[in-house]
Amino acid sequence: MKYNKVNERIIRRLKKIVGERNVTTDPEKLEIYSHDEEGHPRVEVMPEVVVFPETTQQVSKIMKLANEELIPVTPRGAGTGLSGGAVPLYRGIVLSLEKMNRILELDEKNLTITVEPGVVTGEIQKFANRHGLLYAGDPCSGDSSFIGGNVAENAGGNKVIKYGPTGSHVLGLEVVLPNGEVTFFGGKRVKDVTGYNFVQLMIGSEGTLGIVTKIVLRLLPLPKYVVDLLVPFKTMKEAIDFVPIIVREGKIVPTSIEFMDRPSLLLTEQFLNAKLPYDDAEAQLIIELEGNNKSAVEDDYERIGNLCFEHGALEVFVADNRNTRERIWRIRKSIAEAVNALYPANCLEDVVVPTSNIPELMREVDEISRKHNVKAISYGHAGDGNVHVTFLKDEKDSEEVWIKKLKAALEDLYSITKNLGGTISGEHGIGLKRRDYVELVLDKAQIELIKSVKRAFDPNLILNPGKIVRFE
Amino acid sequence: MKYNKVNERIIRRLKKIVGERNVTTDPEKLEIYSHDEEGHPRVEVMPEVVVFPETTQQVSKIMKLANEELIPVTPRGAGTGLSGGAVPLYRGIVLSLEKMNRILELDEKNLTITVEPGVVTGEIQKFANRHGLLYAGDPCSGDSSFIGGNVAENAGGNKVIKYGPTGSHVLGLEVVLPNGEVTFFGGKRVKDVTGYNFVQLMIGSEGTLGIVTKIVLRLLPLPKYVVDLLVPFKTMKEAIDFVPIIVREGKIVPTSIEFMDRPSLLLTEQFLNAKLPYDDAEAQLIIELEGNNKSAVEDDYERIGNLCFEHGALEVFVADNRNTRERIWRIRKSIAEAVNALYPANCLEDVVVPTSNIPELMREVDEISRKHNVKAISYGHAGDGNVHVTFLKDEKDSEEVWIKKLKAALEDLYSITKNLGGTISGEHGIGLKRRDYVELVLDKAQIELIKSVKRAFDPNLILNPGKIVRFE
Repeated sequence: MKYNKVNERIIRRLKKIVGERNVTTDPEKLEIYSHDEEGHPRVEVMPEVVVFPETTQQVSKIMKLANEELIPVTPRGAGTGLSGGAVPLYRGIVLSLEKMNRILELDEKNLTITVEPGVVTGEIQKFANRHGLLYAGDPCSGDSSFIGGNVAENAGGNKVIKYGPTGSHVLGLEVVLPNGEVTFFGGKRVKDVTGYNFVQLMIGSEGTLGIVTKIVLRLLPLPKYVVDLLVPFKTMKEAIDFVPIIVREGKIVPTSIEFMDRPSLLLTEQFLNAKLPYDDAEAQLIIELEGNNKSAVEDDYERIGNLCFEHGALEVFVADNRNTRERIWRIRKSIAEAVNALYPANCLEDVVVPTSNIPELMREVDEISRKHNVKAISYGHAGDGNVHVTFLKDEKDSEEVWIKKLKAALEDLYSITKNLGGTISGEHGIGLKRRDYVELVLDKAQIELIKSVKRAFDPNLILNPGKIVRFE
Repeated sequence: MKYNKVNERIIRRLKKIVGERNVTTDPEKLEIYSHDEEGHPRVEVMPEVVVFPETTQQVSKIMKLANEELIPVTPRGAGTGLSGGAVPLYRGIVLSLEKMNRILELDEKNLTITVEPGVVTGEIQKFANRHGLLYAGDPCSGDSSFIGGNVAENAGGNKVIKYGPTGSHVLGLEVVLPNGEVTFFGGKRVKDVTGYNFVQLMIGSEGTLGIVTKIVLRLLPLPKYVVDLLVPFKTMKEAIDFVPIIVREGKIVPTSIEFMDRPSLLLTEQFLNAKLPYDDAEAQLIIELEGNNKSAVEDDYERIGNLCFEHGALEVFVADNRNTRERIWRIRKSIAEAVNALYPANCLEDVVVPTSNIPELMREVDEISRKHNVKAISYGHAGDGNVHVTFLKDEKDSEEVWIKKLKAALEDLYSITKNLGGTISGEHGIGLKRRDYVELVLDKAQIELIKSVKRAFDPNLILNPGKIVRFE
């Protein structure tokens, strides 16, 4: 791909579109926009210019200009991505959506909320809650990530088994196409078979097909009662085998079914400087239940609790108030922080396998760990088979050795995941990080379809080039 | 588009692929495959040949042959479609999936069921129920339509507000592409961001992008208790204004919120030869609630019942056993039958508007009815804004007058739907019936994207040509 450089004339035109204050070429500022939160190693590329449009019209004009001048544009949300999706690989323009951060409308009659892409997801949740409603999208990064980024990555999180990933809540999208045209896919409706489902095609397309400038989200009733169970199991197999039993015999789809392996727990203990109960158990489940009827929620957790004991749980800790609930989730949510604090060089994965294959995956991860002599911990979303295998750099290893070991370990992890009927990314995206592994899990026909659909939307390949698949 | 004819050589090759018994050119049999259940008037085109493949490999070989020989292929499920989607507009091959009708696997560990496209949807529901599980896709045609057709149309039905349309339950699809290549999109996982979301792009694409040969569906727990409320309201506005209150104040997403206007009810009374209570009410709601905790379901219906009275309901009939429940649904489900019996020439629509705009839509339908002097009744899915406006041919009108009136009425209906923030098809599809109206609701950019995505999948335009948009 051959792109043009951002010259003075382009800068002047950009300034004319978004105003002087919304264009920066200051190297210190550009550096912030050269990477996302991908682990270590990560790719960093300095953009030539960063623009901060405030309206759809401005985004449209920027795209029209870039498309005519053949300048690559990389859209960016909060920069909290984990797969290098917001890295401006071919330099050019980074189009930051941070100034398009308004909640535009709460429609209490149709139970929708319409927002700009730069709103922090947690703000949408809080706003809905204040009106007695729930925005059920809940990525773990919700306190910092933008809804636009959630849409671009089809962000998941802890509540996907009950509510689905981000895409399940999106009814409509205003989109600026790569040539600057503005269109609107979908609308305030859960049913729509007028043409192809471009709403869902946009979701998870990692900013390669268009720039989302407005999002219509569906809202649900806010549950009043929430209970969490922390359940240690002697073996990983017992823990995972229990997951479908919750649904089949427990007759319920919980809000969350999370798991942590023993190394994750030990690491978190070390980080929190605390001793946790049953830290010799091979696996811990967190099961979250919720509802609006107190006695029904109580019935649910008693039933699930009894089932736990019947199926080998060592203990069932029940947290039915905010304080105890937060204590349980603190463990789960501190894992990533503990990893980053104790192993600043690490690689966080998000492979996904059919849930029943998690124990086999865990055995294979142990094997990979031994084979390549690289530490690994695993935790994540047991309910949907999405496992955060995380490789940790041993401080004794040189940078070069770590990169070599990691590459070999990732290749094995991805191959095994594929063999177990899974895929290499459940919620973080392909971006740059996994681009060269896509062919492991998608066949040639699919790669060709990705390329031709990309060209259908973006014939000049100017939007977020170099992501998901290679064109050259 | 220029296609070749099906000659003797092609017939011989087809027979070699699927066996003599699975190829027919018998005109009497071909007639069955010349139309679907679109209303009156409807398009009928005789195929040149109908083939009944039994395996994916056979479908692949047929497509390879057709693609090389430039012969149009129209895939077909049960033929219960309502938009002419299965009509072989350019003749050629009808590829019937009725012999690919096996339930392949129930995976109780991962709570999925894998089926071929020719399985009747109701059979999947019953099969899941026998194992204590729920397949939550539930189009009104479930007793006769095939799951493959449900996928092709993203079929909706009465339970979409709680469970979503067909697409919400589909995890993976085996697809034969127009060139005969076989691929698999998705898998046994609710999270997947590896490449574009081709699973959801396929769903609702009306057999224009590929032929689905295997479907992996998600299963849910089967609720034990179901209660239906039949609630007459004096005015349509009161009935519809009550819909979001159920969610907001009732704190629940019911399984169904259906509505019927007075003319629908009167027609059904006439058909059933029965007098129904409160048939002078302008609108009736049916609200279905379900759960596994009896007292919680009772609490729910008492709470919702009280809210009904607070918001103007004339009465609340509670049906909490199969007998009374069936009596309520009989009314709702007899409407289409009553229409077909009393007005054999009719046109069933499925426009969708933001729920709060249903009363306005109803006023406009009255206006259209007066303006064009054509009878209309309306009923449907209040919870998701999907309204089955049905125009009825007056027996005094000649065929010619009816067609002229209907055309004018449809044009008005679609324009008004668009102006109310809606779209022209929520669950029946565009097919042939609405193809020439798509430009009313989709802008030029979207039409172009539909065409270029279609070409990306099917460069020779051989798969179900002439549907959704015009290429010439």
